[in-house]
Amino acid sequence: MTQATHTPTLSTAATFRALKCKECGEEYELKATHVCEFCFGPLEVAYDYSAIQRQVSRASIQAGPNSIWRYRPFLPVATDNPIDVGTGMTPLVQANRLARRLGLKKLYIKNDAVNMPTLSFKDRVVSVALTRARELGFTTVSCASTGNLANSTAAIAAHAGLDCCVFIPSDLEAGKVLGTLIYGPTVMAVQGNYDQVNRLCSEVANTHGWGFVNINLRPYYSEGSKTLGYEVAEQLGWELPDHVVAPLASGSLFTKIYKGFQEFVKVGLVDEKPVRFSGAQAEGCSPIAQAFREGRDFISPVKPNTIAKSIAIGNPADGVYAVDVAKKTNGNIESVNDTEIIEGIKLLAETEGIFTETAGGTTIAVLKKLVEAGKINPDETTVVYITGNGLKTQEALQGCINEPLTIEPKLDSFERALERSRTLDRLEWQQVLV
Amino acid sequence: MTQATHTPTLSTAATFRALKCKECGEEYELKATHVCEFCFGPLEVAYDYSAIQRQVSRASIQAGPNSIWRYRPFLPVATDNPIDVGTGMTPLVQANRLARRLGLKKLYIKNDAVNMPTLSFKDRVVSVALTRARELGFTTVSCASTGNLANSTAAIAAHAGLDCCVFIPSDLEAGKVLGTLIYGPTVMAVQGNYDQVNRLCSEVANTHGWGFVNINLRPYYSEGSKTLGYEVAEQLGWELPDHVVAPLASGSLFTKIYKGFQEFVKVGLVDEKPVRFSGAQAEGCSPIAQAFREGRDFISPVKPNTIAKSIAIGNPADGVYAVDVAKKTNGNIESVNDTEIIEGIKLLAETEGIFTETAGGTTIAVLKKLVEAGKINPDETTVVYITGNGLKTQEALQGCINEPLTIEPKLDSFERALERSRTLDRLEWQQVLV
Repeated sequence: MTQATHTPTLSTAATFRALKCKECGEEYELKATHVCEFCFGPLEVAYDYSAIQRQVSRASIQAGPNSIWRYRPFLPVATDNPIDVGTGMTPLVQANRLARRLGLKKLYIKNDAVNMPTLSFKDRVVSVALTRARELGFTTVSCASTGNLANSTAAIAAHAGLDCCVFIPSDLEAGKVLGTLIYGPTVMAVQGNYDQVNRLCSEVANTHGWGFVNINLRPYYSEGSKTLGYEVAEQLGWELPDHVVAPLASGSLFTKIYKGFQEFVKVGLVDEKPVRFSGAQAEGCSPIAQAFREGRDFISPVKPNTIAKSIAIGNPADGVYAVDVAKKTNGNIESVNDTEIIEGIKLLAETEGIFTETAGGTTIAVLKKLVEAGKINPDETTVVYITGNGLKTQEALQGCINEPLTIEPKLDSFERALERSRTLDRLEWQQVLV
Repeated sequence: MTQATHTPTLSTAATFRALKCKECGEEYELKATHVCEFCFGPLEVAYDYSAIQRQVSRASIQAGPNSIWRYRPFLPVATDNPIDVGTGMTPLVQANRLARRLGLKKLYIKNDAVNMPTLSFKDRVVSVALTRARELGFTTVSCASTGNLANSTAAIAAHAGLDCCVFIPSDLEAGKVLGTLIYGPTVMAVQGNYDQVNRLCSEVANTHGWGFVNINLRPYYSEGSKTLGYEVAEQLGWELPDHVVAPLASGSLFTKIYKGFQEFVKVGLVDEKPVRFSGAQAEGCSPIAQAFREGRDFISPVKPNTIAKSIAIGNPADGVYAVDVAKKTNGNIESVNDTEIIEGIKLLAETEGIFTETAGGTTIAVLKKLVEAGKINPDETTVVYITGNGLKTQEALQGCINEPLTIEPKLDSFERALERSRTLDRLEWQQVLV
């Protein structure tokens, strides 16, 4: 594991031109840095949009790879050979049964629970971050993670042959720990919550010169989430939806989907139209929802306590920007409790055959809550972002779902069990009817 | 749950014309039936290939949906509105690091571990079977499963609003049981192995009139696996590979990939060339490998005993056809033990960032064995089929991988742990060098 020494160089095809402070506008070279030296604001990648416009068309995108890299001119990498493991282009499923259940007319699920390679949207941001890390000369990559990011960083680093050291809270779900270890990285299980892990990693980034995808590489990394906007627009036939509902952890994904839509309008790939942005948090960690509810433009950090561990960030880096997006698009930010989260997981599975993790359960439960409160119009074309897979958070469902009926391998044993299950069904119906 | 009463009707666009016995050639109506009444041979779907040729071109396929349904004229359904949940079009990953490790030049992984919706190739066959079940008027669908098929049938039935009852052996991995229950079907856990489950289901199919995807709907169902052939040919730029390596359970997948390639040649979508077919079994359940080794044209059933439960079929329905394909293409069928299977899972994860289940570990371990035995030429373009996800068989890895390093959220605790891990790495290297 060695320090990065390369100076970044840009190919002529590169369309990104600087890092720019989101607060004061100061510009920086395209290095591994993420905080403004003047005002401590976060840095964001700035592009030459007329260069992008010259390079892309609907046809050029459709002729590109079946992955996020079909949108390469919109991403902050200079190479023509990015790390492409087939990430992105996940299905956009028309969710008619869930729509009917909720009373909506046109509902879509953008399903990153089947993203390649590690079944969450994090594969998008990590593919971008590690491609950029390689360009910047890093040979060791790292991250502070609530689980999904660790899976993704370890997997894509393995594919790319980069050394990898990841940091996770020590109380993570078993599936997320195993789903990291299997790729052979160094795994540090930190006795503390995500915010403590994150603080430790900031110190390590300063002393070891590693590429932390969500710290010193954060400006590049976070741009990967824009592809969740691009894909939905393309999959809807080059149109924007009316309303999106997405989970909020740091708030970054939410703001980048917004940025993705804006950019597609800017370069003329889709027509401009108002899109409402609504965000979902777990009640046990809802600092962004609280700020939104109270009309604040600052976030008061909280200590997380929820089963939705992958979105349990008590001090969210992009929280204020998420509040801003929800406000200016006439959207909402809501929270739901752990019981509602489990019900959300089941509702999506039973109506659409999609098994999501607790973060997805949160998003579906908030969707339901918003519809019931009249905050989503039944006529709006609504897209819900499912960002992770249910197989990773199996613990959360223990004691919350039925058991199989155990039978002998004989027809009469089966018939008795079937009769019993039908009687149970009838009893449940009677209880419903009473 | 009611019986199917519809008589099948065909639209003018339908390209399938009969069920035909693979043994004696007797033809049958396109109903829910799977065994020849004369010779007890298995029935297979027969097509009008000139009709297919009139309907398809490379361009028409590329303009189709980003799912298996882009190949609809090759599939045994009459409808223009199949159950499309985005199944298929999974990534074909160029596996350079694994190739280098093994000494191959051009190796690809076809990764159905991220298939939609339930992370295995079974989503392909079930999408086809349930679409056909609906056409035939079934309202209750069912299956005998080693786990993945139960996940897929329950999920896609939920999406389509069909009643569902699945049968599994009672000793399945927890992830596969939960990953079925979550969709809300009736689940029968049978105290016996897969072959006993399968026999029970044949009885139930006869008495209840349900659509068992892999029994009375089997001729339609199994055709879904052809899409694994079509996609690879399309993703290789409309060319066939030189060699494929795939797992063998019933043997159906293997023979259907072969059929898929043949059909693409027949209608002129790709040029004809020899493709070698090699199959993988777990030593603890390797009746097909044994028959191949001993040059037999019949299968002697075995009692399964392996961690690779998803491919543990002791009495494989299409075993003889799989042996035939391997023989006539100059391929091989090999088996590996449980230790090699675990090593196969790790090897794929560490080199390519793909986490597969025990069946995939079996396939990778057999790939390695075949290369080492000189049975795969380094110059051959080789495609390995990974058919399921590692998150479903986590138990198999218990005690076989490293633990995380637990640290306090402090820089000095991290530094000590890092130093310790590096010392361990060095010690391991010293052991290697001694």
